[in-house]
Amino acid sequence: MGLFVYKFGGTSVGTVERIQAVAHKVKAAHDNGDQIVVVVSAMSGETNRLTGLAAEIQKTPVAREMDVLLSTGEQVTMSLLCMALIELGCSAKSYTGGQVRIVTDNSHTKARIKRIDDKKIHDNLKAGTIVVVAGFQGMDEEGNITTLGRGGSDTTAVALAAALKADECHIYTDVDGVYTTDPRVEPNARRLDSITFEEMLEMASLGTKILQIRSVEFAGKYNVALRVLSSFSEGRGTLITYEEPAVEQALISGIAFNKDEAKLTITGVPDIPGAAFKILGPIADANIEIDMIIQNVADDATTDFTFTVHRNDLAAAKAILTSTSESLGAKSVTTDEKIVKVSIVGVGMRSHAGIASKMFEVFADENINIQMISTSEIKISVVIDEKYLELAVRSLHAAFDLDKEPAQ
Amino acid sequence: MGLFVYKFGGTSVGTVERIQAVAHKVKAAHDNGDQIVVVVSAMSGETNRLTGLAAEIQKTPVAREMDVLLSTGEQVTMSLLCMALIELGCSAKSYTGGQVRIVTDNSHTKARIKRIDDKKIHDNLKAGTIVVVAGFQGMDEEGNITTLGRGGSDTTAVALAAALKADECHIYTDVDGVYTTDPRVEPNARRLDSITFEEMLEMASLGTKILQIRSVEFAGKYNVALRVLSSFSEGRGTLITYEEPAVEQALISGIAFNKDEAKLTITGVPDIPGAAFKILGPIADANIEIDMIIQNVADDATTDFTFTVHRNDLAAAKAILTSTSESLGAKSVTTDEKIVKVSIVGVGMRSHAGIASKMFEVFADENINIQMISTSEIKISVVIDEKYLELAVRSLHAAFDLDKEPAQ
Repeated sequence: MGLFVYKFGGTSVGTVERIQAVAHKVKAAHDNGDQIVVVVSAMSGETNRLTGLAAEIQKTPVAREMDVLLSTGEQVTMSLLCMALIELGCSAKSYTGGQVRIVTDNSHTKARIKRIDDKKIHDNLKAGTIVVVAGFQGMDEEGNITTLGRGGSDTTAVALAAALKADECHIYTDVDGVYTTDPRVEPNARRLDSITFEEMLEMASLGTKILQIRSVEFAGKYNVALRVLSSFSEGRGTLITYEEPAVEQALISGIAFNKDEAKLTITGVPDIPGAAFKILGPIADANIEIDMIIQNVADDATTDFTFTVHRNDLAAAKAILTSTSESLGAKSVTTDEKIVKVSIVGVGMRSHAGIASKMFEVFADENINIQMISTSEIKISVVIDEKYLELAVRSLHAAFDLDKEPAQ
Repeated sequence: MGLFVYKFGGTSVGTVERIQAVAHKVKAAHDNGDQIVVVVSAMSGETNRLTGLAAEIQKTPVAREMDVLLSTGEQVTMSLLCMALIELGCSAKSYTGGQVRIVTDNSHTKARIKRIDDKKIHDNLKAGTIVVVAGFQGMDEEGNITTLGRGGSDTTAVALAAALKADECHIYTDVDGVYTTDPRVEPNARRLDSITFEEMLEMASLGTKILQIRSVEFAGKYNVALRVLSSFSEGRGTLITYEEPAVEQALISGIAFNKDEAKLTITGVPDIPGAAFKILGPIADANIEIDMIIQNVADDATTDFTFTVHRNDLAAAKAILTSTSESLGAKSVTTDEKIVKVSIVGVGMRSHAGIASKMFEVFADENINIQMISTSEIKISVVIDEKYLELAVRSLHAAFDLDKEPAQ
């Protein structure tokens, strides 16, 4: 028996039948003696429908009214879920973000939660009532409706779990947990029983799109135990916690990859102070996000400079870089879209040397040329030719024994 | 220059194009220097879509959650209308019933307004902002979302007009005003420039379904000047006021009719005290609404009893009456669906005798047999064979000079 916050995304509540399935899942937990708060997203497709209506009227809809519009999506879901719960014989009540109240700043369409009033929810839970809360939304100090931005329902769930001191926050999604890598690339990929927040952040930001990064950061900050589970099947999912793994645990937890990046190289840059700023400044000014950056000093007092951006930004970045190249008197600008970034992630790296060299050994054995390397405390990323993606992921997965349960 | 509350129903805001047309209408008034509060309904079809979703889950959806669900309909409209107004260069802000706040009792799906906080609206109006309010909804003292029931947007508009001391409350609909009778029956029907609240109540309850009766009662009670206009064309519409018409005005204002009733007669009822109660009590107990009632004393210490009910209730009423007939030892029960009720309405009746006899003279001239008669202070209703409907309405329309403008 405990207090749990369950969050169901748009796909999990996409039809009346799915809402009824969610109701059965919630009722089972409630019958078991748990206190349950459910956070719901808009039914899948609804947000796009509403956004489409707004787009017919304003090219860039005014943010305050966009929030008023979009917040209706979760409100529809929460009332239908309560009806389904009541139909099953449960006591259930729904609340909008403003009703709870979830107080945010006034940054419409991307508001941040300032505080949550937990009294109404606790009163209901004590009375045996299941509380259903609209995700993604709140109310500013003046009573205006705000939204937390796309995917913000995860953030709502984590913030509620923190405010209510819940035992765990369950994020129900269409996958049954976090895997050592993408099972479509490596069929031996294994579901992790647990993963640390830091590892999850590295996995998520590298392309494993299960959870919103912000909600994971939030969960880490407030020490909320997050669990990722499937809406559509049974199972314990993956627990994301602050706990350090036991020393016996695997060296690395998973392999992430990202196929959305492109590489730009500028060669023959005069090696003078400020060159890096002169090259990257204009890219940043154009709101293009830069991921990996590498600078090599060449032999003749010039330097080469390589960095990666999202593929969608490649054309714009190339135009800027070409103009910079001319003003700096550099030699050339080259680009490459056919790359992939592969990363191994694990807190075990901290206490174990030799992981990078083992990774590079795998690549050497398979004759995979490494184009760029970047490391952090718990992650090593390399950029390679995209044609080697599957080979690299499978070789690493085997070399680090990720298909085997870690020793206890 | 004045303060006006405009109300637009579901058909008037049924598409993005119509919402944009409404925005143009509102902007024109605002540019003219008027302060405008707009009350909107859900886009036509939306309430049925939401009701359909709920019906898939619960046969009788729980009222609290039904209100949460249905209230999203107006919220969508109000945000889209604000976007359209802002796109035209106006300042505009939307508010839900709860945000205003419109405080109601806690009778979900049929709540009554208790009070309205006008501060937020007045502040916005003073700042030159057009205020758009969701119709049909409010919030109870505990902050639960409530709705006023179908068509309740009219009530919201009238209540806001009363609270804000508006100069007029404009109800925009798909007709351009109140007519002397249904133009589909009498092509010479004429739009009335004005009509009194009492006349409007009699017209409305007799089948002229332009306004919710409750909103008219409300407008009368708080002395709010109501004007019925078309969303789709220009024109002054019809003003519904408390003012007594000038003595020169027409004797009657309009002719209403109702084709939805059926007649039941029980004959040979022993003429003892309590017979009426014994006959009508069981009908009322079955929640069947009775409209006209007539009792004639017959010659042989028995009486005949005739009343009308909605046609949908005829079968149920007949079964009850047959059972009553047996227990009372009455002679027979007969029913007739092929009837129509035709009424003339006008405050002029109060000060002018002879109107009833003129009505009956018209019927006599046309050989129309009158089956039942019922009168009130400002209305005379008769039940006739439904095949005479057009003949009766047109003859009365001509006899009372309704096709001519009243003398000033």
